[in-house]
Amino acid sequence: MNNTITAEIYETRREKLRKKMHSKGLDALIINYDANRFYLSGFELKDSQKNESSGLLIITSSGKDWLCTDSRFYEAAKRLWDEKYIFIYKTNPAEQIGELIKNNITGKIGFEANTTSVNFYHKLLSFFNTNQTLVPSDGLVEELRIIKDNHEIELLSRACKLNHELMNAVPQMLKNGASEIQIAWDIEQFFRNKGASGLSFESIVAIGKNAALPHAIPSNEKTIDNCPVLVDVGCRLNDYCSDQTRTFWVGDKPTKSFKETFSQVQEAQMAAIEILRPGLSVNEAYSTALNIFKKYKVEQYFTHGLGHGIGLETHETPSLNATRTTILEAGMVITVEPGLYYSDWGGVRLEFMVLITENGYKIL
Amino acid sequence: MNNTITAEIYETRREKLRKKMHSKGLDALIINYDANRFYLSGFELKDSQKNESSGLLIITSSGKDWLCTDSRFYEAAKRLWDEKYIFIYKTNPAEQIGELIKNNITGKIGFEANTTSVNFYHKLLSFFNTNQTLVPSDGLVEELRIIKDNHEIELLSRACKLNHELMNAVPQMLKNGASEIQIAWDIEQFFRNKGASGLSFESIVAIGKNAALPHAIPSNEKTIDNCPVLVDVGCRLNDYCSDQTRTFWVGDKPTKSFKETFSQVQEAQMAAIEILRPGLSVNEAYSTALNIFKKYKVEQYFTHGLGHGIGLETHETPSLNATRTTILEAGMVITVEPGLYYSDWGGVRLEFMVLITENGYKIL
Repeated sequence: MNNTITAEIYETRREKLRKKMHSKGLDALIINYDANRFYLSGFELKDSQKNESSGLLIITSSGKDWLCTDSRFYEAAKRLWDEKYIFIYKTNPAEQIGELIKNNITGKIGFEANTTSVNFYHKLLSFFNTNQTLVPSDGLVEELRIIKDNHEIELLSRACKLNHELMNAVPQMLKNGASEIQIAWDIEQFFRNKGASGLSFESIVAIGKNAALPHAIPSNEKTIDNCPVLVDVGCRLNDYCSDQTRTFWVGDKPTKSFKETFSQVQEAQMAAIEILRPGLSVNEAYSTALNIFKKYKVEQYFTHGLGHGIGLETHETPSLNATRTTILEAGMVITVEPGLYYSDWGGVRLEFMVLITENGYKIL
Repeated sequence: MNNTITAEIYETRREKLRKKMHSKGLDALIINYDANRFYLSGFELKDSQKNESSGLLIITSSGKDWLCTDSRFYEAAKRLWDEKYIFIYKTNPAEQIGELIKNNITGKIGFEANTTSVNFYHKLLSFFNTNQTLVPSDGLVEELRIIKDNHEIELLSRACKLNHELMNAVPQMLKNGASEIQIAWDIEQFFRNKGASGLSFESIVAIGKNAALPHAIPSNEKTIDNCPVLVDVGCRLNDYCSDQTRTFWVGDKPTKSFKETFSQVQEAQMAAIEILRPGLSVNEAYSTALNIFKKYKVEQYFTHGLGHGIGLETHETPSLNATRTTILEAGMVITVEPGLYYSDWGGVRLEFMVLITENGYKIL
């Protein structure tokens, strides 16, 4: 199977989206969320700055979809899109896109209210006629993205495989008083030298007590003989993300607390994974892990959710926690990452990526 | 001078912002734009995903400023902020922040309409009482950020110095049929091994005809004997960005077109730099470069602006182009980067970072 996703696959996704739009009575849908834009077109996965969009799509019920961007991206756009439907804006995107819509589209026009700015919205609206309405329509693309197609599963598996390779190499990196910052850089170089385009998120390498912080930032703290090291890292390979956590012990005398905690976390992780199957509500997976911790009376040290969907982004729907009731379906890829944290010595977290299959699950 | 910016400097910036808020009659200002948040607090320079904020600030006229974030960032927040004014939200940030504001702040409350989502805005508004109004107040922090203080100038100078070192090392990297992708990775490793936390933007390494694309993406194209290579790269060092472009010739027989174009671009760059001083309108700098190109009748091959401000982000105000009339002031740091592009053989761009001084300019 090819590394790249073909034009036909993007077209198929847009057709699926069109069906969803139809069911909501939408004549068009403006996609400005960067990962959604990429999912539907292959165009620019990440905007470069918070205030700098690389462009947006206008998906229409007629099938004549626009890619709107600025001149910097014209060459990239032409490789992906019918030139007739590439719209290049200059200094005032909202106004120029407003004009484009005014002249080309009528009816009910959806937009992503979670990622569209108030200013952009108001400027756009000022161009609309009485036969045009602008309605919040979040989540339609995310509903597609939550179920990974075969290409995506293949690409996620490859990213995950590289992450396993990395984890096998990590023990070598932990020796000789290495600092968290140095280990994190070794990890990043490993990923990049094996073809990853980058990290999928800022690496967590947490030595000793730092392992008690679920989102520790690498510091100058160094490994010593006999200490825990929590490593939560992922790569981006062929645009798709991996995310894994292991907790290592440097030295040959792990403490009793570490061994006990490790065993409890592992038991909780496996218990939560073993029940995964289509039809299960995600909060049941969460409570399965929690119940293991309750058995050992350590549930108060499990301070975060059980996991999250993963794909083009590290954090996607569904979120696996106590309050969510998303029903698992075949094709979802989620992380399962219970952890226990103790401020006096550190903590343990273990994380796998898991594919939901027709009959149950598969650890990637 | 220390690498890090102290608590006092952040406090000074917030006091300056409070004066601007006062002049606009604002009782509070919600800062959700990540780079602005960091500028005022040192808290989290970049949100990790487009739909995932690391938190926001509420700057108040009373001086009791809130840092709102989720539990992942609590430890990081405590290092920077009075714990009494750290607000940890859970699953519904807009609603919980709405409650916080309802109970603690009255009057005219500004927000950043360029970066606040429509959904967040509407949810927040639904909590407001009749004694609270929410008004778009973009650009106040950017007005402060456009003038770099001494710490920032020092940090920008260091990032720029590392970029010069890199550029001196680039010729070694261009040999032996190296691909654009490999050269880009060599460049990134150089930066990282010298202490940079990463790139300030995706590197442009463009060989031969690819140099004709102002925003080329590194490909498997390889250097050959006698070809141009355009390298536009920057690093992030101590949070501040650098951005430089050089155009190299691989081999000892540069073509006449290359030599002529290089000389024209260099002349345009120096002409534009030499007139920089407080009081100059940025479009005059642009037209100075353009006039050099007009002299050689090549102005149609100069297809982008002359440059941009740079600091915590690669692209900041002011933008230097034909239509902008921002007046330069001492303390601004801008790029000057004219270029000429020819689809049949490539192109040349040259870029320096320049500090505007009391009396003129200084190339960093």
